[in-house]
Amino acid sequence: MNKERLWNRLHELSQYGKDPIAGHTRFSFTKEERMAKDLTAKYMLEAGLEIREDAIGNLIGRKEGTMSDAPAVLIGSHLDSVPQGGMFDGPLGVLAGIEVLQSMNEREIVTDHPIEVIAFTDEEGSRFQFGLIGSKAVAGVLTEEDLQRSDQNGITLGQAMKENGFDPLRFKEAARDPKTVKGYVEVHIEQGKVLETNNLPIGVVSGIAGPLWLNWKIKGEAGHAGATPMQLRKDPLVAAAEIMQDIEEQSKKYTNAVATVGKISIKPGGVNVIPGEVEFTLDLRDIDESVRDTIEKTIVANANKICSKRKVELEVTTLQRVAPVPCSPEIREVIEHACSQSGVKAYTMPSGAGHDGMQFKDFCPIGMIFVQSKDGISHNPAEWSTK
Amino acid sequence: MNKERLWNRLHELSQYGKDPIAGHTRFSFTKEERMAKDLTAKYMLEAGLEIREDAIGNLIGRKEGTMSDAPAVLIGSHLDSVPQGGMFDGPLGVLAGIEVLQSMNEREIVTDHPIEVIAFTDEEGSRFQFGLIGSKAVAGVLTEEDLQRSDQNGITLGQAMKENGFDPLRFKEAARDPKTVKGYVEVHIEQGKVLETNNLPIGVVSGIAGPLWLNWKIKGEAGHAGATPMQLRKDPLVAAAEIMQDIEEQSKKYTNAVATVGKISIKPGGVNVIPGEVEFTLDLRDIDESVRDTIEKTIVANANKICSKRKVELEVTTLQRVAPVPCSPEIREVIEHACSQSGVKAYTMPSGAGHDGMQFKDFCPIGMIFVQSKDGISHNPAEWSTK
Repeated sequence: MNKERLWNRLHELSQYGKDPIAGHTRFSFTKEERMAKDLTAKYMLEAGLEIREDAIGNLIGRKEGTMSDAPAVLIGSHLDSVPQGGMFDGPLGVLAGIEVLQSMNEREIVTDHPIEVIAFTDEEGSRFQFGLIGSKAVAGVLTEEDLQRSDQNGITLGQAMKENGFDPLRFKEAARDPKTVKGYVEVHIEQGKVLETNNLPIGVVSGIAGPLWLNWKIKGEAGHAGATPMQLRKDPLVAAAEIMQDIEEQSKKYTNAVATVGKISIKPGGVNVIPGEVEFTLDLRDIDESVRDTIEKTIVANANKICSKRKVELEVTTLQRVAPVPCSPEIREVIEHACSQSGVKAYTMPSGAGHDGMQFKDFCPIGMIFVQSKDGISHNPAEWSTK
Repeated sequence: MNKERLWNRLHELSQYGKDPIAGHTRFSFTKEERMAKDLTAKYMLEAGLEIREDAIGNLIGRKEGTMSDAPAVLIGSHLDSVPQGGMFDGPLGVLAGIEVLQSMNEREIVTDHPIEVIAFTDEEGSRFQFGLIGSKAVAGVLTEEDLQRSDQNGITLGQAMKENGFDPLRFKEAARDPKTVKGYVEVHIEQGKVLETNNLPIGVVSGIAGPLWLNWKIKGEAGHAGATPMQLRKDPLVAAAEIMQDIEEQSKKYTNAVATVGKISIKPGGVNVIPGEVEFTLDLRDIDESVRDTIEKTIVANANKICSKRKVELEVTTLQRVAPVPCSPEIREVIEHACSQSGVKAYTMPSGAGHDGMQFKDFCPIGMIFVQSKDGISHNPAEWSTK
């Protein structure tokens, strides 16, 4: 591994898509993204890889193995960013993959299986309001409806592809036969503070947590804050407070579960008026779907008890339910073995955020390696990683 | 008492200021309020009272006593309303006062002390964003600054007085010498459900609760809902939830205390983002200031513990602090005695809402009588009372 080369490439690549205000804004199928892909293609050639772009614009660099028909090991990440994002989220995984293959080639290390580095098209979803586009196409789950999704200027994904020289009618050609893929590995910054807090260099990801989004609406009875004794109230906000406490308590019982109430609104919203209605959202995640299901069942059951005791009405609706994806025990073992050989402590942890590998749930075994995020900051110009 | 006459007058008076959409909108110093005052003056004359208007526009009807220099007993309420308010809040107290004096005159009942019925100017504060204007003037606490407060069209109270034939420079003439006042009594609808729930006709008010308004700001640390384990969070909303629970618990320990969180806001407010900052308001009331102080101290101390445990920052600021006003034990006894003589069960209860009598805290002893509010509804076209 040539650390300096990787570091320099990260900085060189970050020149494309610099946002005029702060950080990097590099959306899919834009000039900035094209330039980043072209520079990355140049790195792939320097690494001695055979390059191509598939029908959805995924940039692929391949190092052949000794068994030419053997399924390929994929290493990947993405080059697009969120608005005013950082320079590590995505590019690090692509460039680290190239660096590994270039170092292997320099040392004339040959493998049985071919290895491919992929820069996936549009992981973030910032342009078309849905992401993981390139990995969806590879897994064969991208649909014709997806191509109709449009950006804020009304340009559809299909149109954007066309403008960039891709034929939207041929997007299915990006789908790969699972038999040709051995597995998928991705290096990514953690986007949290676990590694930093514990002063650890490497996280071996146990699984990618799927978010379950629930909307909670509680109806009580608005009233005069002065003229309604506590005993006669049907206050939905105090019910919500009790539920939020329980959500925290229940999710803390499991190592990897995270539960977040990120939005709350109240009606009518006067200082001297008892609220009549409260709505809040819950983002609940775990890498184990059965754990997430158990927590969901418990908190909804407890919330119903709380609301019935307080004589307020509860309505819980599902906004989205994404299945978690466990990482392959085999790949995890390989990563842990490599760590122990290098004298690095491997720390097992979940990925709370979503990544391209999620699309390979029923496609191939996946693995992920996390590196530290300074202060846990990501999707932000201050995103940084040095370890 | 001529119940029918009182009932008919309530309905006749309610014809002035009917809101085109619903209920009644009768602001101070408007044509509608003037017409309501003129009709009320006619009732006062029918009742055999001597009428006058003071320098702030309070309409006063006086029945002389046998001791002409003796201090007067005041009975009052107001004729102005909130936007789209009901027909009982205010008018009932004025018309009930007139009815009592008219019935006394009809039965030739003579008292030692003179008795005056007062229709106070602008109790609600809907026009100039502050209320109790007439009672403030009588108590001598209305200020020149108050006269500069303007309505939504930029018309000041002083200008509105002038337009209605009052000289704003002479407003202090409305102030009365406390020596000329024996006490103040007001009949009002409860604006809550206590009497209705307990199937009681009359509430003897023990005191008027003063609202303490506090703003609570809690600063934590925003973060990725997926990538931040529960243990590493500094979530201000869960802290707020714990505090809200404690606020309810502490205030429930006291019979008359009421505590309401009526507004809450959250930043940044994304489904998948741990909140970084939460703000909410608290309206805390009790008729006993020392009880209110005790609750305030306890909840702030507990909140500081909660926030320090959760490593979030708490900042509590006072928005307003109005002193509660206890009702005179002597007047309460007189009301209770009258109830027992009439075979009516007198129920002692606080007034959570504010009333004109609050201005007489250091001026004269006060008393209040509550009657039922149907469903506890007030400040609403559905406001009703039949018992």
